[in-house]
Amino acid sequence: MSERSDQTTAGILPGIKTPGDLKRLDPDQLTLLAAEIRDFLVVKVSRTGGHLGPNLGVVETTLALHRVFDSPRDRVLFDTGHQAYVHKMVTGRQDGFDRLKQRGGLSGYPSRAESEHDMIENSHASTALSYADGLSKAFTLRGEDRHVVAVVGDGALTGGMCWEALNNIASAKNRLVIIVNDNGRSYAPTIGGLADHLSTLRLNPGYERVLDLVKDALGSTPVVGKPVYEVLHAVKKGIKDAVSPQPMFEDLGIKYIGPVDGHDVQAMESALRRAKGFNAPVIVHAVTRKGYGYRPAEDDEADCLHGPGAFDPQTGALTAKPSVKWTNVFADELVSIADERPDIVGITAAMAEPTGIAALQKKYPERTYDVGIAEQHAVTSAAGLAMGGLHPVVAVYATFLNRAFDQVLLDVAMHGLPVTMVLDRAGITGPDGPSHYGIWDMSVFGAVPGLRIAAPRDAITLREELREAVAVDDGPTIVRFPTGSVPADLPALRRVGPVDVLREDERKDILLVAVGAFGKLGMEVAERVAEQGYGVTVVDPRWVRPVPIELAALSRGHRLVVTLEDGIRAGGVGEAVASALRDAGVDVPLRDLGVPAEFHPHGSRAEILAALGLTAQDIARDVTEWVSHLEDPATEHQPQR
Amino acid sequence: MSERSDQTTAGILPGIKTPGDLKRLDPDQLTLLAAEIRDFLVVKVSRTGGHLGPNLGVVETTLALHRVFDSPRDRVLFDTGHQAYVHKMVTGRQDGFDRLKQRGGLSGYPSRAESEHDMIENSHASTALSYADGLSKAFTLRGEDRHVVAVVGDGALTGGMCWEALNNIASAKNRLVIIVNDNGRSYAPTIGGLADHLSTLRLNPGYERVLDLVKDALGSTPVVGKPVYEVLHAVKKGIKDAVSPQPMFEDLGIKYIGPVDGHDVQAMESALRRAKGFNAPVIVHAVTRKGYGYRPAEDDEADCLHGPGAFDPQTGALTAKPSVKWTNVFADELVSIADERPDIVGITAAMAEPTGIAALQKKYPERTYDVGIAEQHAVTSAAGLAMGGLHPVVAVYATFLNRAFDQVLLDVAMHGLPVTMVLDRAGITGPDGPSHYGIWDMSVFGAVPGLRIAAPRDAITLREELREAVAVDDGPTIVRFPTGSVPADLPALRRVGPVDVLREDERKDILLVAVGAFGKLGMEVAERVAEQGYGVTVVDPRWVRPVPIELAALSRGHRLVVTLEDGIRAGGVGEAVASALRDAGVDVPLRDLGVPAEFHPHGSRAEILAALGLTAQDIARDVTEWVSHLEDPATEHQPQR
Repeated sequence: MSERSDQTTAGILPGIKTPGDLKRLDPDQLTLLAAEIRDFLVVKVSRTGGHLGPNLGVVETTLALHRVFDSPRDRVLFDTGHQAYVHKMVTGRQDGFDRLKQRGGLSGYPSRAESEHDMIENSHASTALSYADGLSKAFTLRGEDRHVVAVVGDGALTGGMCWEALNNIASAKNRLVIIVNDNGRSYAPTIGGLADHLSTLRLNPGYERVLDLVKDALGSTPVVGKPVYEVLHAVKKGIKDAVSPQPMFEDLGIKYIGPVDGHDVQAMESALRRAKGFNAPVIVHAVTRKGYGYRPAEDDEADCLHGPGAFDPQTGALTAKPSVKWTNVFADELVSIADERPDIVGITAAMAEPTGIAALQKKYPERTYDVGIAEQHAVTSAAGLAMGGLHPVVAVYATFLNRAFDQVLLDVAMHGLPVTMVLDRAGITGPDGPSHYGIWDMSVFGAVPGLRIAAPRDAITLREELREAVAVDDGPTIVRFPTGSVPADLPALRRVGPVDVLREDERKDILLVAVGAFGKLGMEVAERVAEQGYGVTVVDPRWVRPVPIELAALSRGHRLVVTLEDGIRAGGVGEAVASALRDAGVDVPLRDLGVPAEFHPHGSRAEILAALGLTAQDIARDVTEWVSHLEDPATEHQPQR
Repeated sequence: MSERSDQTTAGILPGIKTPGDLKRLDPDQLTLLAAEIRDFLVVKVSRTGGHLGPNLGVVETTLALHRVFDSPRDRVLFDTGHQAYVHKMVTGRQDGFDRLKQRGGLSGYPSRAESEHDMIENSHASTALSYADGLSKAFTLRGEDRHVVAVVGDGALTGGMCWEALNNIASAKNRLVIIVNDNGRSYAPTIGGLADHLSTLRLNPGYERVLDLVKDALGSTPVVGKPVYEVLHAVKKGIKDAVSPQPMFEDLGIKYIGPVDGHDVQAMESALRRAKGFNAPVIVHAVTRKGYGYRPAEDDEADCLHGPGAFDPQTGALTAKPSVKWTNVFADELVSIADERPDIVGITAAMAEPTGIAALQKKYPERTYDVGIAEQHAVTSAAGLAMGGLHPVVAVYATFLNRAFDQVLLDVAMHGLPVTMVLDRAGITGPDGPSHYGIWDMSVFGAVPGLRIAAPRDAITLREELREAVAVDDGPTIVRFPTGSVPADLPALRRVGPVDVLREDERKDILLVAVGAFGKLGMEVAERVAEQGYGVTVVDPRWVRPVPIELAALSRGHRLVVTLEDGIRAGGVGEAVASALRDAGVDVPLRDLGVPAEFHPHGSRAEILAALGLTAQDIARDVTEWVSHLEDPATEHQPQR
């Protein structure tokens, strides 16, 4: 790799403003450009953090596809989207990388607001082929002569949606190019029968080359009595069977080209041109290496520097000083519990490291299952494990459990099975944008009968609530906590049922129900409100579904109940508490604070909270205003103490 | 088929109380038993209604599997579950069929409360292989010598969960037998690349028989210098390539046995015994015919009498007199709209007939897409179609949209795409039991930003709201209606914003917000409450998400707001109205009536409503009590008018 410097504006890259600019480059220039792009990515991402490994792996693929196709007329869809950095660089957005994933800066995913070259903003894997099927059907129906190209990783192919899409794409027979970017991994090495199949294909690179030789030979040799294409077909089949296994995609009725060296722009271009020429769906199997061209990424066995924070570009070492994350506390406690209970098993959907399941996997590999990017299977296979007498712990990001709502509802809860789901990155997440927000869980899963949801506020309660969750043997449990460093422990004064009382004043004006990680914020709010002369009780319900009935008794005597949660208001804990109080005949006025049910932009968690008015200052001001308003006798609902 | 009579207790069948009883029968007796079972099914289901075609198709398969395996020690899992009738008959439940699907009677699906032979109660397709993967992992980990057998249809294999499961099953390499019950259809003929692949396999029935011949020959012929199995292996491969295409399952690493004639008990037994002997996952490909052995079912091209109501056993003709269903109104209006708007396209997930999409399909086949049992793909391919300039209408049962929550949230709503989802069988459904209830939609999808939800109350408002829905061009819409016959039209007095005022009294005591199909019930309640001297206003919000702001103004002046909805209370319309009124500063007391967020048993819709106290009489009594209680000055919150 070339010597890196802060100067990334020299060379060919700065002249690339649109995909059209790529089409004028010769092979040598393309090679230089690829190197410049890698330097640019390493330097920029080393400062802002971001997805590195995946983008280093698709440099040549992206260049080739933009030379062969004509975006935005032709539609290029990136599955998952975090591997679209190179695409962004060649579609006029190099300047944006200085503020990558920062509030108001460049999104870490495709963004229609940024560019007409972007189409899908969803960061969840395995969806692109379904969009592509719809788009190609629309182009066909409307008689538009436009191509659709979808780029999907081998990891994403483990997701069921890809299967549904391939089945339909095969059947629709519309023009559609699918680039399988096969690097053998998502975060972790890809698992499953498909991965084995792809690696079998990968080890047989002979087919395309042998075919080309035969074609060349046939081209100049007349064959008596048979049209060339017939002979070719027979020869093709013979060679294929001899040198390469039949790819299963062809069994489905989708043409297959490959494997192609995904780091060879010419080879990729040639494959894509052939694919473009078919008037039918085609898979181009590109073999790439995640982190290619940057030694620290190539050498990182955990995840090829998948999505690091800021790092030293020379060594790849992270610059941020390590802190104890929520994930670490969970991982550590899970191993402790597993030491004591042989029935505890762990499940991850291709994210053992980021969810902390890796710790269990290391100690108890036979009790840990990586199911691929397959949240539905994660949950329903957990139901099967529970039926078989085990207690599975499914660890996923909160945003991804939404993909298995029906499975949680029917497969687990309806059967009353003891499955614990641990939701990391719950609540406002931030830099990864709207589709990574974990704000839906308490609302959506709050509708699931018999499902208990815990929201710990610190390391101690996380350990405690995880133990309480795995002790439940007649139904599912969720333990949810946010992203980032775990705050200092926030001890309780006393416990009432499951509810921790964190603060009590002599006066009882306001009962503040601070959910989970908002415990600290609740205490700060209380302090400010108390300075205005009001008495504030702060409680952490610990278990938010079902709503602890103790909250009704705790509410009595207060003039206002305020709920505060790191999740959407619609159907959230606040509404559930309001409903529980109504049902208990407690008519203390209630105000529920939380996240509006909207799609929120990327930015730091602190920035987003501030933008939503979820700071101690803003909330204290609102609460003070509400409670002072209640003093007005015209609107007074409750007698003063 | 033998002459049918009411006397179904003669013969072999009555003596079959447990699977063990099957093991004593000889081949001739098995043939007789299969005929008796078919007679029994036709006679019983002709009286109660139920799933007929699927069960007629699995008679021999079920007998064979219970002879080869040892349930309940070995675990038999039926995907979808509506084809478990024969299983029920041979596990001691023949008597229950007189009250099939009736409240307190036999469930139409496996039920753990009924039998230790039943395991999964979920009626949603494509889940069984995931449970099976979990169960087989549990048996392996715990060292239990038990088999897991999953029966899955070719239709269910189009669902992505099956792909996720197969990928994991291949990788886990545990002992597991998967019977693919391939009848070429679910409701409708199975679509897609997989179906084509299966039919290729199906057309090559030579393999197993040729293999058997070769085996027989080899068994008595010593082969010089080679162990028999090596020769056999080579011969096997040669024959396989010659007479049968390589099944794609083997590419995944799962052994394949088949195709086997699924109506030949001996052939099925022999295949299952071979499968049982492998210490690895095996697929047994059984070719069957839906409705086999009963001419009216075999001849029914629409769905082979998939799940008829009561019918004449001689002719298969339904006995109930036809009425206009909600589905018919939707189907009719959709075609009218499509006549006017070429951008309207329809999507069904393998249920064109039951959802009414068949009408569109008939007139505009090129504008209708059957995606298989693949709700995720249905929704996200609709997103793609919408990106391509079309307006897709996705018609599914309400319970099945839960399977695509994440896709509705991110793929459609986050992109603000105009996709209309039409939810049939919303609310309390009844006979099909807990996993068919459509009671979650207004709560769960109510959390989706920008999604508008309409709940029509009669044929006129269904037509009207469907037109309003497809006129929305900046985001998704849902139109939801219940199962069954559409009630008489219920005209409005006036319209305020989107809200229809259905009744107004001079006194304004109670505002009754009656959602959708509960409009009629609301009017009956009002009449009874008015008889007690109270004034009742009844409104139908028509659009329930977002909550019409007009409800705030309409509430003012009333002493009590009561909401009434055919969906769960948790996070439902009632809570949303309460929240909207709070936010608007309207503090009229509110009571929300709806379905408890629980799993409800099977029974008729009327029986379930009665059991939940959702009758005019019960509700009127509650409302009268609440409003009279408000008159007590001690609890009076609002000034009297």
